[in-house]
Amino acid sequence: MINLLIKDISEPTLLLDEFKCKNNIKRTLFKIKSLGIDSRPHFKTHQSKLIGNWFGELGVKKITVSSLKMAKYFLQSGWTDILIAFPLNIRELDEILVLSSHINLKITISDINALEFLANVITFPIEIYLEIDVGYNRSGLDINDLNLISKALKIVNKSKFLKLVGIISHNGLNYYTKDKKEVVENHRNFLSKLLDLKNFITHQGNKVLLTIGDTPSISICDDFLGVDELCPGNFVFYDVMQASIGSCSTDDIAICLAVPIVGIYPARNEMVCYGGATHLSKESLRFDSAEIYGLVVDIYENDWSEPLEDTFVKMLTQEHLVIKTTQKVISRHKVGDLVGILPIHSCLTADAMKKYLIPNSGWVDHL
Amino acid sequence: MINLLIKDISEPTLLLDEFKCKNNIKRTLFKIKSLGIDSRPHFKTHQSKLIGNWFGELGVKKITVSSLKMAKYFLQSGWTDILIAFPLNIRELDEILVLSSHINLKITISDINALEFLANVITFPIEIYLEIDVGYNRSGLDINDLNLISKALKIVNKSKFLKLVGIISHNGLNYYTKDKKEVVENHRNFLSKLLDLKNFITHQGNKVLLTIGDTPSISICDDFLGVDELCPGNFVFYDVMQASIGSCSTDDIAICLAVPIVGIYPARNEMVCYGGATHLSKESLRFDSAEIYGLVVDIYENDWSEPLEDTFVKMLTQEHLVIKTTQKVISRHKVGDLVGILPIHSCLTADAMKKYLIPNSGWVDHL
Repeated sequence: MINLLIKDISEPTLLLDEFKCKNNIKRTLFKIKSLGIDSRPHFKTHQSKLIGNWFGELGVKKITVSSLKMAKYFLQSGWTDILIAFPLNIRELDEILVLSSHINLKITISDINALEFLANVITFPIEIYLEIDVGYNRSGLDINDLNLISKALKIVNKSKFLKLVGIISHNGLNYYTKDKKEVVENHRNFLSKLLDLKNFITHQGNKVLLTIGDTPSISICDDFLGVDELCPGNFVFYDVMQASIGSCSTDDIAICLAVPIVGIYPARNEMVCYGGATHLSKESLRFDSAEIYGLVVDIYENDWSEPLEDTFVKMLTQEHLVIKTTQKVISRHKVGDLVGILPIHSCLTADAMKKYLIPNSGWVDHL
Repeated sequence: MINLLIKDISEPTLLLDEFKCKNNIKRTLFKIKSLGIDSRPHFKTHQSKLIGNWFGELGVKKITVSSLKMAKYFLQSGWTDILIAFPLNIRELDEILVLSSHINLKITISDINALEFLANVITFPIEIYLEIDVGYNRSGLDINDLNLISKALKIVNKSKFLKLVGIISHNGLNYYTKDKKEVVENHRNFLSKLLDLKNFITHQGNKVLLTIGDTPSISICDDFLGVDELCPGNFVFYDVMQASIGSCSTDDIAICLAVPIVGIYPARNEMVCYGGATHLSKESLRFDSAEIYGLVVDIYENDWSEPLEDTFVKMLTQEHLVIKTTQKVISRHKVGDLVGILPIHSCLTADAMKKYLIPNSGWVDHL
C-alpha cells in the first residue's frame, strides 16, 4: 500500500498519532509496573501487529485477546503467551486445542456447562481462567453464587488436564459512571468482592491469580491491592467515551477519522462529511441534552487540533455524517476540506476501518 | 472460499436466504413497474455483484450507489448506468471524471459551492442530479430556498458541460415514523413539495426527472404520481427497523447473523453469544420500554424460524451479545448451539460482515 499525505486523502481515513499512542502505552505500562502488578495488555482495541510490537519493545511478554482469530493473528508476529478473554466457544474447541498444543494459550470459562463439556473431552493439559461476573451481567459465573463457583472448582480439580490459573473479571459498570469519583467507588466495591472470592478459592486449596482490566480503573484508580495481572486495552487509543468518564483528556486520543466535507449548510450551522456508520461505527454518548457520535477537530499535516468548541457529530447514517457547529467554525471551512472525528468508541472505529495511516510515515495493519 | 454447512459454523456468520431476497426484489420491481415508474435500485445495502446480477436478470439496467468505490465495484460486473447518490466529494473529482469518460455515470450535487467548483473545472459533458432536502436536514439544497435552487439552475444552464438530469431526494423522515399511516402521510407531504419544485424548475426551462427512493414509501404507499425514477435499496433484505415501521413482515427479512451460544444464565433468563457490535454493527430500536439490538430466531438447516417470543438482543459490546429471553426458550438451548439474529439495520450488518453464506449453496461477495 502506498503512503499517503494528508493533502492526498480523498475518502474516510483513520489517522493514528504514533506519539500519543506510544505515550499512552508507556504511561499505562509504567503505572502497572509501579503498582507491582503484571501486565497482560488486551490487544482487541488495536488488533495490530505493529502496535503490538510497540508493547513488546517495552518488555511486555504476555497478552490478552478476545477471539481465536485474534490469537492466531498475533501468533504470526511471535506472541506465544496469549489469553483468550472471551467465553469458551465450544464450536471452536478443536482449533483452540490445536493452537494450545503449539503455544502457551489460556482460555476463559464463563459457563458451567462449557466447563463440563471441556472437562469431558480434554486429553492434554490446558490452562484456564474462570470468568466472574461482579454485577455487569454480561458473561461469567455470578460472584454471589458460591455453590456454582464451588461446583466449577470441583470439576477443575477432578480433571487431570484442566489447570486453573486465575479468575478474571471485567468491570463493565465503570462505563456507566459519570466521573472519576464514581469510577473510584465502583472499582473499590468491585475489587473488594473479588478479593473475598479470591480468599474463598484459596481456602478451597486453589492458588489463583486475580486478573482485571478495564481502562477507566487503570487510568483513574490507585488501589489495586490483591490484583496480580492487569489486562486493559482501550487506553492504547482512548476515545471520547473515556475522556467523558475522566480516564484521559481529549488530547490523549490517538486515532481520528479524517473525513472530507461534502456540504456546508450555514442556515442550520451544519456541515456534512463523507464518513458514516460504516466507517466510524455507530456508538453515541449523551452529552448535555444532545446525542453525540463524535467530536470534531481540524487536521494538520502531522497532527490535529483540540476538539472544536460547540461542535459535534449529531447524525450518522451509512456513509454520511452531519456535524452541528457554529458560524465561526463554518466560516473557516469549505467544501473539499478535511476535518477529523474523534471516535466515541475507538475499538469499534478501528475494527470498522481495518487499517491506520500514520501521516508522513505509512500504513499500519489491523486484523 | 469453501462452502460451509450450518452445522460447521463456528463463528459469527451472515446467512442469506436467497428465496426471501429474490422475492423482495421481484415484488418491489413489479410494484415499481406497475406504477409506470423507472427502477434505479440502490445497491448500497447488498453491495454484492451476485445479488446485483439477480436485479439484472429481472431487466434492471440502471443502478444507484453511494460511493465512487461502489460505482467501480459494480462496473466490474458490467453495470454502466450508475448514479452516485452521494454529495459530490470534490477530493475524488479526478477519479470521478476518469470513470465518467468510460461509463454513463451520473453524480449528485448537494451543495452550491461544490456545484460552482465543478462548473469551473469541467471540460467535457457530465450528467448531474440536484439533491433536494425536504426537511430531513442531512444533505441537499433546502427545498424552501428557491433563491439558492435558482442560483444552482443558473450555474448549470450557463455551463456547456453540465447536464441536469433530475432532482433527487431521500425521505429520511420516514425512518422516524411509528406506523404505516404516518409513512403515508409523511410521503404525501414530501411528494407534494417535490412536485411543486419540479413544476418550478420546469417553468424555468429545465426538464428534470424526479427521483426518490426510501424503502418505507415504496413498500407501503401507492401514490407516486409525478415520480419518474425510484431508487430504494434496503428492501432487498429488509430488517427489524423496516418491520417495525410496517414496510415488511419479519418473515421477509432475508439476512440473519448466525451466532454461537457461549453462556446461558438461567437466573436472569439471558444467553450470551459470540457476535458483537463488530459483526452486527450497533443500531438499536426502542421497543416498548427496552432498547433492542436485534431479534432472535432459531436456525434450521436451510432456513430460520419466526422471531422467538419475548426474546431480543439487549446488549452489544465488541464481540459479545446478550439475549434477554424466557425460561421456555432457555430450556430448549444449550451452550454450543447456534441462534440467529435479525439485524435492526441490514445495510450496516452486511457492511460489517463483508460476505454472506447461502446455506448449502455457497458464499456471496460483498464489496
